[in-house]
Amino acid sequence: MKVRKRIVLAALCVASLALPAFAADPLPSWDDTAPKKAIVAFVERVTKEGSPDFVPTAERIATCDQDGTLWAEQPMYFQFFFALDRVKALAPQHPEWKEKEPFSVLLKGDVKGALAGGERAMLEIVMATHAGMTTEEFAETVKEWIETARHPKTGRPYTEMVYQPMLELLAYLRANGFKTYIVSGGGIEFMRPWTEKVYGIPPEQVIGSSIKTKFEVRDGKPVLVRLPEINFIDDKVGKPVAIHQHIGRRPIAAFGNSDGDLQMFQWTTAGGGARFALLVHHTDAEREWAYDRVSSIGRLDKALDEAQAKGWTVVDMKNDWKIIFPFENR
Amino acid sequence: MKVRKRIVLAALCVASLALPAFAADPLPSWDDTAPKKAIVAFVERVTKEGSPDFVPTAERIATCDQDGTLWAEQPMYFQFFFALDRVKALAPQHPEWKEKEPFSVLLKGDVKGALAGGERAMLEIVMATHAGMTTEEFAETVKEWIETARHPKTGRPYTEMVYQPMLELLAYLRANGFKTYIVSGGGIEFMRPWTEKVYGIPPEQVIGSSIKTKFEVRDGKPVLVRLPEINFIDDKVGKPVAIHQHIGRRPIAAFGNSDGDLQMFQWTTAGGGARFALLVHHTDAEREWAYDRVSSIGRLDKALDEAQAKGWTVVDMKNDWKIIFPFENR
Repeated sequence: MKVRKRIVLAALCVASLALPAFAADPLPSWDDTAPKKAIVAFVERVTKEGSPDFVPTAERIATCDQDGTLWAEQPMYFQFFFALDRVKALAPQHPEWKEKEPFSVLLKGDVKGALAGGERAMLEIVMATHAGMTTEEFAETVKEWIETARHPKTGRPYTEMVYQPMLELLAYLRANGFKTYIVSGGGIEFMRPWTEKVYGIPPEQVIGSSIKTKFEVRDGKPVLVRLPEINFIDDKVGKPVAIHQHIGRRPIAAFGNSDGDLQMFQWTTAGGGARFALLVHHTDAEREWAYDRVSSIGRLDKALDEAQAKGWTVVDMKNDWKIIFPFENR
Repeated sequence: MKVRKRIVLAALCVASLALPAFAADPLPSWDDTAPKKAIVAFVERVTKEGSPDFVPTAERIATCDQDGTLWAEQPMYFQFFFALDRVKALAPQHPEWKEKEPFSVLLKGDVKGALAGGERAMLEIVMATHAGMTTEEFAETVKEWIETARHPKTGRPYTEMVYQPMLELLAYLRANGFKTYIVSGGGIEFMRPWTEKVYGIPPEQVIGSSIKTKFEVRDGKPVLVRLPEINFIDDKVGKPVAIHQHIGRRPIAAFGNSDGDLQMFQWTTAGGGARFALLVHHTDAEREWAYDRVSSIGRLDKALDEAQAKGWTVVDMKNDWKIIFPFENR
């Protein structure tokens, strides 16, 4: 009885010691390797009052890429799956698509063949599925899709294909007074309907590519109509431009995974004071995908070289992340 | 002695009674007329938990025009005074301007003559003074100008030509959980360097017209260069477009003073639930300026008719505002 009591007490002690330690670790899915240490060191530097690197809350801007940085991007950017599903859904209203490439090829189930037309084919598919409706109608379509569509490989909702360590990182930054922004090559209106729920990032902190919209009064009701015309491509040199246009402040921290993020990193780290740039390197073919320098999606080549030259933090997904997707935790 | 003591005590009582009453009035420069009552009633409706009109904090978006709504706009938009001052400052580097309209006319001091060329002349002047430098250089020029330039009529810094009742209104909205945005036809980069100090509105909540910028690496340093090309005109039908692009939420309250704000009002008030639109009507030729339906600057014609038809709140500056500029208070 006495021994048993002691064991119970010891177990309780361990539990009570272990619990606060776990609770105190804001990044439990990160291994205790260099990237985690670099993140924590940076956040402590800029938040410690009186420190020479202290940054006031209003200036704690963090910008984060989405595809391949917050959620997966293989075997294809997820927004493109949305576009393909829309082509199928809209096909009955477009009998002409049966004879018209790339739609005809796509509707026969040949995605690769449809994309053989390159950028022009892709643009045609995007415009046919993303324009012509009001902003409210488009948002409703996105909401419905994101709740029902499933990833072809995992069978999971796309919003479960997010990176648990990055969710923890965003929450950790916000707990330390950072304002977290998404800065993505993806469509701004494709992200906004669900980013708050999934990432805790509200619509006004989402920056992305866009098509033009037009204000109209229809039957006495004002609407914004989505036009089949590119407004802005938020990728590569476009990222610093969009950051400046939307935020008007230079970020002090930036997170990305590909050459599309290189200029955002250059812009962020060129500011005065403490700066932080982190690249997610896809190295885990087993739990996720492994790709970098020669991938057509999320190519990471020049940015990897520059990260090494400039000492930016590089996450080796295989060795620095305990888990990748939240569902691994269950 | 006794009488005097009583008087002193009575005076103290009055003072102590009067002080909290004043402190409790968030809009002391507003007369107790219909507009003030409408503002307070609206804010109470949307902030009272459990009320059918309650709006969660995140959705309490208020958008506010600047020229003629937050600061004066006569005898000319203030940004145009900036442009004229820049033409003078840059003239030594542009000997060709001596022979080239509209610059030649302007440099002879004939502003009216220079503007006779209409929109094209104005655009030439704006591009010559607002483009060609980096965003950081431009921000420095604006900061220096806004601190040193003086209004031709009052001799005061332009940032003192702001409307005290509107400053109180912005503070009142923020104290009630609103996020306040500027949505102006003026240049976004002309406003951002000083709006936080003057209005309490940070750069990321400033929306305006813009020219294109280009990311470049100059001598190893990344910069954004301002190009002589219009990116977006944030006026009239442009306002709802820009609001949607920047914020991604529909405002529940909007403030303006001219036909340039009409579509912002239509867009704001067409949303569900409680909505508020307020027009500042310039009716006080003595303390400020009186102008509306036929003014070339800040024309208020269609929006005034629609305000009357739809029951939007109209501020009669002469009768609804106790003071207009903060300096009247001193």
